[in-house]
Amino acid sequence: MLLSEIKGPEDIKERSIEELEPLAAEVRQFLIEKLSVTGGHLASNLGVVELTIALHYCYNSPQDKIIFDVGHQAYVHKILTGRMDQFDTLRKQHGLCGFVKRCESEHDVWEAGHSSTSLSAAMGMALARDLKGEQNKVIAVIGDGALTGGMAFEALNHIGHEKKDLMVVLNDNEMSIAPNVGAMHNYLTKLRSDRNYLRAKDEVEQLLKKIPAIGGKLAKTAERLKDSLKYMMVSGVLFEELGFKYLGPIDGHDLPGLIEAFHQANNVSGPVMVHVLTTKGKGYSPAEADSFKWHGITPYKIESGQVLKAVGNPMYTDVFGKTLIELAEQDSRIVAVTPAMPGGSGLLKFAERFPDRMIDVGIAEQHAATMCAALAMEGMKPVYAVYSTFMQRAYDQIVHDICRHNANVMFAIDRAGFVGADGETHQGVFDIAFMRHIPNIVLMMPKDENELRHMMKTALDYNEGPIAFRYPRINVPGVELDPELRSLPIGSWELLHDTDGPVLIAAGPMVQVAEEAAELLKRDGIQAAVVNARFLKPLDENMLLGLAHRGQHLVIIEEASVAGSLGSAVLEFYAAQGLSGLDISLMGVPDRFIEHGSIKEQLEEVGLTSEAIVEEVKQHRSAAHSFGLANKL
Amino acid sequence: MLLSEIKGPEDIKERSIEELEPLAAEVRQFLIEKLSVTGGHLASNLGVVELTIALHYCYNSPQDKIIFDVGHQAYVHKILTGRMDQFDTLRKQHGLCGFVKRCESEHDVWEAGHSSTSLSAAMGMALARDLKGEQNKVIAVIGDGALTGGMAFEALNHIGHEKKDLMVVLNDNEMSIAPNVGAMHNYLTKLRSDRNYLRAKDEVEQLLKKIPAIGGKLAKTAERLKDSLKYMMVSGVLFEELGFKYLGPIDGHDLPGLIEAFHQANNVSGPVMVHVLTTKGKGYSPAEADSFKWHGITPYKIESGQVLKAVGNPMYTDVFGKTLIELAEQDSRIVAVTPAMPGGSGLLKFAERFPDRMIDVGIAEQHAATMCAALAMEGMKPVYAVYSTFMQRAYDQIVHDICRHNANVMFAIDRAGFVGADGETHQGVFDIAFMRHIPNIVLMMPKDENELRHMMKTALDYNEGPIAFRYPRINVPGVELDPELRSLPIGSWELLHDTDGPVLIAAGPMVQVAEEAAELLKRDGIQAAVVNARFLKPLDENMLLGLAHRGQHLVIIEEASVAGSLGSAVLEFYAAQGLSGLDISLMGVPDRFIEHGSIKEQLEEVGLTSEAIVEEVKQHRSAAHSFGLANKL
Repeated sequence: MLLSEIKGPEDIKERSIEELEPLAAEVRQFLIEKLSVTGGHLASNLGVVELTIALHYCYNSPQDKIIFDVGHQAYVHKILTGRMDQFDTLRKQHGLCGFVKRCESEHDVWEAGHSSTSLSAAMGMALARDLKGEQNKVIAVIGDGALTGGMAFEALNHIGHEKKDLMVVLNDNEMSIAPNVGAMHNYLTKLRSDRNYLRAKDEVEQLLKKIPAIGGKLAKTAERLKDSLKYMMVSGVLFEELGFKYLGPIDGHDLPGLIEAFHQANNVSGPVMVHVLTTKGKGYSPAEADSFKWHGITPYKIESGQVLKAVGNPMYTDVFGKTLIELAEQDSRIVAVTPAMPGGSGLLKFAERFPDRMIDVGIAEQHAATMCAALAMEGMKPVYAVYSTFMQRAYDQIVHDICRHNANVMFAIDRAGFVGADGETHQGVFDIAFMRHIPNIVLMMPKDENELRHMMKTALDYNEGPIAFRYPRINVPGVELDPELRSLPIGSWELLHDTDGPVLIAAGPMVQVAEEAAELLKRDGIQAAVVNARFLKPLDENMLLGLAHRGQHLVIIEEASVAGSLGSAVLEFYAAQGLSGLDISLMGVPDRFIEHGSIKEQLEEVGLTSEAIVEEVKQHRSAAHSFGLANKL
Repeated sequence: MLLSEIKGPEDIKERSIEELEPLAAEVRQFLIEKLSVTGGHLASNLGVVELTIALHYCYNSPQDKIIFDVGHQAYVHKILTGRMDQFDTLRKQHGLCGFVKRCESEHDVWEAGHSSTSLSAAMGMALARDLKGEQNKVIAVIGDGALTGGMAFEALNHIGHEKKDLMVVLNDNEMSIAPNVGAMHNYLTKLRSDRNYLRAKDEVEQLLKKIPAIGGKLAKTAERLKDSLKYMMVSGVLFEELGFKYLGPIDGHDLPGLIEAFHQANNVSGPVMVHVLTTKGKGYSPAEADSFKWHGITPYKIESGQVLKAVGNPMYTDVFGKTLIELAEQDSRIVAVTPAMPGGSGLLKFAERFPDRMIDVGIAEQHAATMCAALAMEGMKPVYAVYSTFMQRAYDQIVHDICRHNANVMFAIDRAGFVGADGETHQGVFDIAFMRHIPNIVLMMPKDENELRHMMKTALDYNEGPIAFRYPRINVPGVELDPELRSLPIGSWELLHDTDGPVLIAAGPMVQVAEEAAELLKRDGIQAAVVNARFLKPLDENMLLGLAHRGQHLVIIEEASVAGSLGSAVLEFYAAQGLSGLDISLMGVPDRFIEHGSIKEQLEEVGLTSEAIVEEVKQHRSAAHSFGLANKL
């Protein structure tokens, strides 16, 4: 095994190119074996094996900065930079992160959060280098999917203008997670088909010589035309027009070809784009055949490619997708909008059933939001299906284009709460805090799949402005479904267990946790009430006033940032009512980023368990018995 | 006067093109006269007089949707759609809005919030039209500045792919507010210079015929080359590659030429881009000579072009700009980053002094934020100078790229609080609420210019992560400046007047308002304490614990959304401490969008005045004397 001798990039540089070819095969084998046990992002990593080897062969990491966009395609990079032994812990709590992680290695120079940031990062590092008078290379590796994100264009526009030395490797695999859409994708497809054309370059040079010299009044035009022809020879004119030197397309699985291309790129001054064609899943036939399915994968049997899935209830995502079809059958105003996540958002069947009413805009959360506002103004009922974490990209558009217009946009916010193995870059714990202060919006979260369905009906029937339902990345509890869908009164909560004891106010999956806590408390003789705070905005003010009247301990439990979310809203409401003397505990996600692990581990880490609720209630009771306010200070 | 006969777009369509030329002159005269009294966006509107007339001549608003990006260039549109008589109230409270406003007219179909949204809006309206089987035209009018915003590219990418019928009018005046930067700008400059080339199109056709037929092995290449030459004839290849039909460039002050171009565009199926060249300030020589200064202007003398400015203290913006130069003289790590607002952010002198350390990225708030993170990682001290409202565009990048990386980025958040005449799209009232829940960030706001300077020093000295200082769009109070800059202890508040009465906790300019309220209260025998809550995160926990101990009424006063801002943070802190029984009032901006007017009017509207504070304290005292909690329910 050559691979076992690679302790860092320096061990690659010592080899001949011929020796590196078998290394690629070993890396692939390693990935296929390890991920069959741990799961993870297989297809994208199999696609960049040669590319990553070539980068470490040609550049001196970490002095040269290799920046991976998104970062889930950095497993090969991790293997080559001394982290091979940690792959058994991949995406597990305290284990190897599924993304680039600065604390893991000096070779991880940029932790991508969401997609399309690598060009901006590269520009920042190139600017800093030049200001400090240093000489290192800066390389951004970005997929064709990520290139459609608006901020990537903002960066291209800036880089092309400033003419800093930096290299963009466009890793073109024709996919983001789903197949790509968009005019840029069409353009790249054209470039790919132009490869033969490029090879005919020599012939074209000969041809040019055959055009006779032309005099007279046409001379100037002829001269200009000949100049332009030089341009025509170059593929990638779009990038050239934006100030980049374009090299490509290059076969991304041809190691010597890649190394040659990087050497060429090093001779270019100013920004250069190397267009590399790769195949997702390369070298593992099940993944090559269906790279969409094999993008992020659970454990599988290597030989058959059979995926080992836990049998269980459907996900909330599935219930959303199925219910949306039911609603759309009856209401032709419904249009589904997704920023490049038709599968992840549960919309594949919807797309089959209503191809004209399914709009995949590519990685373009901002455009999607604003387009939804316009669709709503023209009488449609757009459903913006988006992960909580990705919706962060559209904050300004939600404020101004949707909420200020008071447009009838429905938000289907998936992956709300903890997401598990994807970790801190994908947690959906901020959306209540960043949406609650926006005027005109209604925010809901269901305690189970039955309620999700009613909330979707509620959102459809509501025609007074934007309305959102958020749901977690977990299996549904499996409750019985009501035969008829109905609208919930806006701002209404449910008192699930009414007692005269402490009151547990919870939202979403935390309602079940609160009910479990109430059961546990009962054993200790404490009769706790449980409230399903299914509207996060507006609050159920009548119920809150009634609860205040009881003078009991109120515990607000939410899988969201304590700062600015539901608990905060309740405190503000009571303050506005001039109600002091209330005894309120807030339980939620503390003020730090929560790393990867299982959702269960993440909930335990922050104390969002029935045991922790019991503890909070009991501690509070004993403290209340022993101390007054003055003693606490 | 022809203009006085124009009551709506139908009155334009009846005229001959010859009659419309004098109309343009009348519109200009009207604008120059009216704005000399009210102030407003003069230069951009003088630039689009013919363009707007031509659009209303060629299209049937409101059936055809004319969408203005940004919207401050829609005065001409307002004049032509029956709102001429309201121009005396422009940008005043309850008067004509300075932007497009749906409630003003059926011809206002899209209220732009920030820039670069018009293409997404147009796509939404075109999709809705086709789904409903309607036939209207959809037209987006976007400036070359706004085109650099990432979401505009996201929309271009989607539109070019879907091939919907819609027209983009690229209003190219070579400026956003400041002169444009970026590769797209360079490209447009090239197109502009290509006008003669386009006119030579006929000659080129002749030339093509002179190329001899070529046989043999080169035949295929030759054929391909000839095909390509057709392409070469077309300017705007970048837009053509993205799926648009490109028409232009067109002289935007040639009314017959514009009308001809729109007729041509109507014959194109699929998306078409009409590239129109306009001159900001056209027809008024002072504005043509300095369109930057005349972008948004205060009242002026028409003949001399002399601007009538109130004499007063400098703005906070000016103090920021001046102090940043002082700091940058001593610390070479400082780099200023602006998204297209070098003037508005007070950085023009900095740019002169440190041209290499001044980075204007164009309208690209997201790229700017992420680039700052990378600059910080490489040891620089980037200062991201941005208006509060525009920072909304970079929320996700602030979360993931700056705060999650814990990068040493300094935020200079200008226009925090109310902004006056620009109104609801530009109010800076959400930034505390959308930043406070993000881990790792420090947030400050100074009570006066002296404290702003210390905060800038504090931010420079702080090397443990991101730190922000926010300041309002007002004149500084004019306090004495300390000779030495010093770092403030992170999280420290100031107890300005210590008494044993109610405590007024305020931030920024509200500190002065609270002090005035304390003076007023004194006349009534109430001794109020005043706290300068200069850190919005972290809070001064020791001071808060001490204040709780007093058992007095605490009033938290902030020019920010009540939901999720400082008051909310204080309530959360006390809840976390288990401190109940506190008597807290929150005063801030309520849960609705606050429209244009003067800042004073806006503060009065929401009750952020010394009188309102006095009222709150007194009412509370009398309520507290009469009622207990139970009686309130």
